[in-house]
Amino acid sequence: MTTTPVYNTFQTEYRVRPDDIDMYRHVHNSKYFDYVLAARYDQMECCYGMAMEAFLNQGLGWVVRTVYMDYKRPLILGDYFIVTTSIESIDEKLCRIKFGVKNKASNKLCCDGWFDFVLITMADGRATKIPADVIAHYASFKK
Amino acid sequence: MTTTPVYNTFQTEYRVRPDDIDMYRHVHNSKYFDYVLAARYDQMECCYGMAMEAFLNQGLGWVVRTVYMDYKRPLILGDYFIVTTSIESIDEKLCRIKFGVKNKASNKLCCDGWFDFVLITMADGRATKIPADVIAHYASFKK
Amino acid sequence: MTTTPVYNTFQTEYRVRPDDIDMYRHVHNSKYFDYVLAARYDQMECCYGMAMEAFLNQGLGWVVRTVYMDYKRPLILGDYFIVTTSIESIDEKLCRIKFGVKNKASNKLCCDGWFDFVLITMADGRATKIPADVIAHYASFKK
Amino acid sequence: MTTTPVYNTFQTEYRVRPDDIDMYRHVHNSKYFDYVLAARYDQMECCYGMAMEAFLNQGLGWVVRTVYMDYKRPLILGDYFIVTTSIESIDEKLCRIKFGVKNKASNKLCCDGWFDFVLITMADGRATKIPADVIAHYASFKK
Repeated sequence: MTTTPVYNTFQTEYRVRPDDIDMYRHVHNSKYFDYVLAARYDQMECCYGMAMEAFLNQGLGWVVRTVYMDYKRPLILGDYFIVTTSIESIDEKLCRIKFGVKNKASNKLCCDGWFDFVLITMADGRATKIPADVIAHYASFKK
Repeated sequence: MTTTPVYNTFQTEYRVRPDDIDMYRHVHNSKYFDYVLAARYDQMECCYGMAMEAFLNQGLGWVVRTVYMDYKRPLILGDYFIVTTSIESIDEKLCRIKFGVKNKASNKLCCDGWFDFVLITMADGRATKIPADVIAHYASFKK
Repeated sequence: MTTTPVYNTFQTEYRVRPDDIDMYRHVHNSKYFDYVLAARYDQMECCYGMAMEAFLNQGLGWVVRTVYMDYKRPLILGDYFIVTTSIESIDEKLCRIKFGVKNKASNKLCCDGWFDFVLITMADGRATKIPADVIAHYASFKK
Repeated sequence: MTTTPVYNTFQTEYRVRPDDIDMYRHVHNSKYFDYVLAARYDQMECCYGMAMEAFLNQGLGWVVRTVYMDYKRPLILGDYFIVTTSIESIDEKLCRIKFGVKNKASNKLCCDGWFDFVLITMADGRATKIPADVIAHYASFKK
């Protein structure tokens, strides 16, 4: 059984930066983490019309609660790649984002997995409820 | 049912570096990844007596295949922390390392999870079998 | 007296990545270093027609010998910016690259300075002479 | 003529973290920047008795205005190193810090240079006068 994705999928293209390369001469594992954060940031603005800044300006921030990443093949210096993300689920506690990182030239998957984000109050760093209007806004991106 | 750890657990102390801090004024999530890699590097040398360099000198490297990390509470600027790791399992394909990152002052767990490492040939980046003598060496650290 | 630049100037556009932001909520100072390296990497390929890979494939690499950076105003989350570089001078020992990092929206200079690069042999990390044909190739980009 | 340093010099020991290594298999140039910031952070607390947090708690921060770094020889994976810093000069506008990064095993200098720091108001990111009592406090570390 394959689950059909319920929410739309969005993608953003990037290029490996030389400082992302580690002693194995491939992209350092932890940089994929940053690539997904970058894509989320861009897509919140461009695709969802609810930019990170809209949260920051209200004293709120999205932080990672749990992450699962599976590395399939490396990206190397100079590679262009596509980061795909979609909402897997969202409720007042958690927003689970599925992602894939694909090599643009080969179209092969380099890494996939998911992130659970929680919303925090910037002032004290504590988790807060994801507001109903945010959940409703994301629901408008259901297929 | 709680599983008793089979392999010994080792720990290394570090301090947060200012460049580890992100816009949330806590340690950036992907840095925990690097903290675990640092602890593995140190412990391979100090605790297991089989340094990373012993692999690199043979043209071999350890790379992450899969990672699972669960963030419980943040580390902030100036914090000292303890990274604990132990082997969860090892066979010729994979070495699973469990880890915990604990705030030294509060003794509270900040992050835990596991990494699956594969051994690669540096020349081509491809996975290679973990040699029997390496598995046997690690077996000597069973409790 | 203002010196007229002798070599052509090239520019590349990037966007701040969220992981570039530090506890001051602006781009971390050391990231400007990486931005210039990224622009050099891109421009070696696109603008000079002599990609970094052409050097790496011969077992050669460009490393920084000296750097001078002057920070004028910060870049923040979400900013697009332009990195401009030009050759200031090149001889068999050193290649000095001047750079500027400009905020795209305001067109204001955020950081400028220069990098001295030396060519090294990757095998031993030692400086080697910049070959005459490389110097000649760059000379074709004189105005 | 050699100038005698007027202010005391302090030193802090660190170890290279695996994530500091780049594709040249040495410490990435921009990481020296972070090593100096780490040493300043530690020494403000331990050596000067006026921790970074004392500034942050007043809504103030130290940011780099200008940097000059000269790389002499690389640090590699596993190296221990000593970061030495001293105040070169301080007035109400700027604090110039001289630094050296030395390989602990060889006692050889890997990198030296200086940083000009300005004090900013965290709320608006603008430079503010370095208070007279801060300058006076540092003056007590004159030889």
